Amino acid sequence: MYDGLKGFREFYPGEMSARREVTDTIETRARRYGFREVGTPALERTQLYVDKSGEEIVEELYAFEDKGGREVSLTPELTPTVARMVVAKQQALAKPVKWFSTRPFWRYEQVQQGRFREFYQTNIDIFGSERPEADAEVLATAADALTDLGLDGADFEFRVSHRDILGGLLAAMDSDVDTTDAIRAVDKREKIDDEEYRSLLVGAGLTHEEADTFDSLLRTDDLSELVEFAGTDRVEAAVENLQAVLDAAADFGVREFCSVSLETARGLDYYTGVVFECFDTSGEVSRSVFGGGRYDDLIESFGGQPTPAVGVGIGHETLSLLCQRAGVWPAEELSTDYYVLTVGDTRDVALDVARELRALGHVVETDLSDRGFGDQLSYADGINAETVVVVGEQDLEDDAVTLKDMASGDQTQVPLAAFPPEEGRPTYDDYA
Amino acid sequence: MYDGLKGFREFYPGEMSARREVTDTIETRARRYGFREVGTPALERTQLYVDKSGEEIVEELYAFEDKGGREVSLTPELTPTVARMVVAKQQALAKPVKWFSTRPFWRYEQVQQGRFREFYQTNIDIFGSERPEADAEVLATAADALTDLGLDGADFEFRVSHRDILGGLLAAMDSDVDTTDAIRAVDKREKIDDEEYRSLLVGAGLTHEEADTFDSLLRTDDLSELVEFAGTDRVEAAVENLQAVLDAAADFGVREFCSVSLETARGLDYYTGVVFECFDTSGEVSRSVFGGGRYDDLIESFGGQPTPAVGVGIGHETLSLLCQRAGVWPAEELSTDYYVLTVGDTRDVALDVARELRALGHVVETDLSDRGFGDQLSYADGINAETVVVVGEQDLEDDAVTLKDMASGDQTQVPLAAFPPEEGRPTYDDYA
Repeated sequence: MYDGLKGFREFYPGEMSARREVTDTIETRARRYGFREVGTPALERTQLYVDKSGEEIVEELYAFEDKGGREVSLTPELTPTVARMVVAKQQALAKPVKWFSTRPFWRYEQVQQGRFREFYQTNIDIFGSERPEADAEVLATAADALTDLGLDGADFEFRVSHRDILGGLLAAMDSDVDTTDAIRAVDKREKIDDEEYRSLLVGAGLTHEEADTFDSLLRTDDLSELVEFAGTDRVEAAVENLQAVLDAAADFGVREFCSVSLETARGLDYYTGVVFECFDTSGEVSRSVFGGGRYDDLIESFGGQPTPAVGVGIGHETLSLLCQRAGVWPAEELSTDYYVLTVGDTRDVALDVARELRALGHVVETDLSDRGFGDQLSYADGINAETVVVVGEQDLEDDAVTLKDMASGDQTQVPLAAFPPEEGRPTYDDYA
Repeated sequence: MYDGLKGFREFYPGEMSARREVTDTIETRARRYGFREVGTPALERTQLYVDKSGEEIVEELYAFEDKGGREVSLTPELTPTVARMVVAKQQALAKPVKWFSTRPFWRYEQVQQGRFREFYQTNIDIFGSERPEADAEVLATAADALTDLGLDGADFEFRVSHRDILGGLLAAMDSDVDTTDAIRAVDKREKIDDEEYRSLLVGAGLTHEEADTFDSLLRTDDLSELVEFAGTDRVEAAVENLQAVLDAAADFGVREFCSVSLETARGLDYYTGVVFECFDTSGEVSRSVFGGGRYDDLIESFGGQPTPAVGVGIGHETLSLLCQRAGVWPAEELSTDYYVLTVGDTRDVALDVARELRALGHVVETDLSDRGFGDQLSYADGINAETVVVVGEQDLEDDAVTLKDMASGDQTQVPLAAFPPEEGRPTYDDYA
C-alpha cells in the first residue's frame, strides 16, 4: 500500500463537499463584486521568489531544476504570478484590474494544526487604483464572504493598520532605526514574550525609552496623537489614508468588522499602505486567519509601470478552523436527490426516469451492481438519497412507479405518465 | 519583466470564463450522475509511477528530490492517486465508489498544439462494479457532458472496443506474440504509415499472413466472426461484454454516440476490458480528444482487495479544440449585470444600491478610481455591463436613480424607494 506525502492531503467526498461549499461561497461573493477569475501555473522560475524575498526563501520552497536545466519552484503564493501577468499585459488591461482565483500553493515547512505543505487560498486583488475605495472593496469582499459563510461580527474582526504609521513613527525617532527589523518585531509580537519583543526593537536600533514610547503609541485609541508625535507629512498622510479607508468601509457596509490595530504589520515586506488581518474574536484560533493589504510598489519592481495594488489571500485551512470553531462549517456528507431502484427487468424504464430527473437538474443514482431490492435501498440510504423511485415489474404492470420518502419511509404509487413532471423536484409529499 | 515557463499557461479573465463554463458544465453533469468530488495532492512519491509504468516514465515526469530526501513527482495523471485513496479506505467506502475531480497535471514533454506541460483534466471513475452498467454510465456521463456543451452526434463519436478482443485474437494466433507490443502497434496505427504498422506487428511476433488476418479481423462489422476465428472463451466473453456495454449504453440513451472500433486500444497498459476514445467526427482534431476504459487489476496491484474499476479522463485542452472546431466554445468575454455610477458626492447611496443588487445575486461594479461620468461609462462598457445605474446628485434630489440600458443607450429615472426591488433582475425594460 502506498502512502501520501507528509503535509499533503486527500479529501474524500464528505470533507470535499464542505470545502467546495466554502470555496463556492467565497468565489460567488468575489464574482458579485466584479472580480474575475484567472488561471495560473503551478510552477514558476525560482528567481521570481528570490528577487522578491531574497535567497533565504529557497529553503521554504519546493525548488528544483527541471529537465531543461531551469531552476523552478512550486508556487508558494499567488502575488508574484499575478504581478507578472499584470506587467505582461499592462497596456491592454483596463484598470482597475480585479482578479480572483482559488488554488493550492506549496511550501516546505513544518506541518502543524492548520498548516500544511500543500494549502489552498482564494486570492482577491485589485490593480490600478490607489483610492481608499479599492482597499475598502477588498475588506468588504472578504467580510461579506465570511458573513455569507454564516460568520458574524461576534466571530471575527479585521485588525486594520497602515504600514506608513509604523514606518513613519520609527523614522520620527531620534535613533537610526532599521524599519524592516522593527516592523518584523511588531509582526511577531503575539508569538513572542515581552522581553524578546523589546530586545528585537532595541536590536532594530531603538533606545529603551524609544521602545516604550513606540509601544504606547501603538496602543493609543487617538490617531491624532500619532500625527502629533511624529510631526511628519508621512504619518499624517498615513493616518488620513487609514481613516479614509475606514470611512469607505462604512459606505461599503463593513465598518463594523474593522478595528484599528497598529500592531498589525503583516510580515511580507512588499506591503506599502493599509494592511489588515482577520482574527478569531474568541481567540480560540490563536493566529491570524488570513490577511491582506496594499502593495503599491510590487508591479513596478517587476518591471511594470507604477501600478497601485491591494489584495487579500484567504487561506482555507485557517478559515476552516474558524468556521468549525464558530459552528458554521458545512456538513461533511453526501447529498442525493433520487435513487431510482430497479426490481426485475426494468432497467430501460428506470434509466429513462433517471435521465428525465437529471434533465431537471437533480442528482440521481441508479443500480450499477445488479443488486436486489434490499441492497439497493441500503445503498440509497448510504448516499443520503432523499427520495427512492422504485421501478418494479409490478409497478410497471400498473404503468406506475413507487415514490418512497427515505426520511419517513412513506411511499405511494405514481402514474409513470405523470412522473417526473415537466419541472420541479417531485417528492412523496407532492403525491401523497 | 519575468516570463512564464514553456508549456505553462496563464489564463486571463476572458479565456478563463470560457474554461470555467466548460468545467462547470462537465462537473454539473458528473454530479447529476452521482459522482462525488474528491481533492487530491499535486505531489506523489515517484515510486508510485515507476511501479505502475516502469523506470522510463521518470523521463516524462517533473520528478525531483524534496528537502526531506524523498523522491517525489508532480502528478502526471490521477488514476494512481485515486487508486491509492480507494485502497486506503477500502473497508469504509460503500461500493460503487463514484468520484470526479478537475485539476491540472504535469508532464515534461514536447509542447505542441493542444499539448502542454501543465494540462487540465476532469477525471470520472467508478470503483467496485464489474457490471456493464458501470462502463455504460461512464460513457453516458461523458457523452451527456459533451451534448451539454452543445456538441452533438455529428461532432463526436466514442470508438469503443475491448482489450480482450485484441489480446484474445493475438493469443489465438499460431505464433508466439508479444501482446503488449502488438496492442501498442494498434494504438499507434493512426499516427504511423502502413508499412511501419506492419513491421511493428511482425516485430511483436506475428507472421505476415497473421498480420493480414489480424488486420482484416479488426475491420469486421460482424463481431461473431471474431468469436469464430479465435474459438476461445476469452474472445467470446470479451465480445459478449462489449455487446452488453453497448446494450446498457442504449438504455442510458447514449448508444448513438458509440461505434465499435476494434483498433481502439488505448496506450496505457493497465486497461483490462472495454476501452473507448472520443474522436472529432470531422477529423479536424486529428488525434483522440480523450479516452477511458476499464482497469480491473489496478487496485489489487496497489495492494488493495480485487476491485473492478472503470473511468474516463477528459482532457480540457483537446476538448477545447473540438469545441472551437464545432463552434460551441463559450464566448471569451466578461459579463456584468450592473455598474453603479456615482456623480458627485453620492458614494454612500451608490454603495447601498450596489449592495442590495449583490444581495439579489447579481454581479455589480462601482467606481474605485474617482472617475468622472464619461470615464465610468467607458469602464462600464469595457466590462460589458448590461445596465448602468446612475446615482447622481441631481437624481438624488428627485429621490431617484437613472437606469441606462447599455445596449440601446435608453435610460429612464426610477424612484430610489423602488430600486432595487425585493427580487429579480431589474433592467430598463421593467421601468420604461
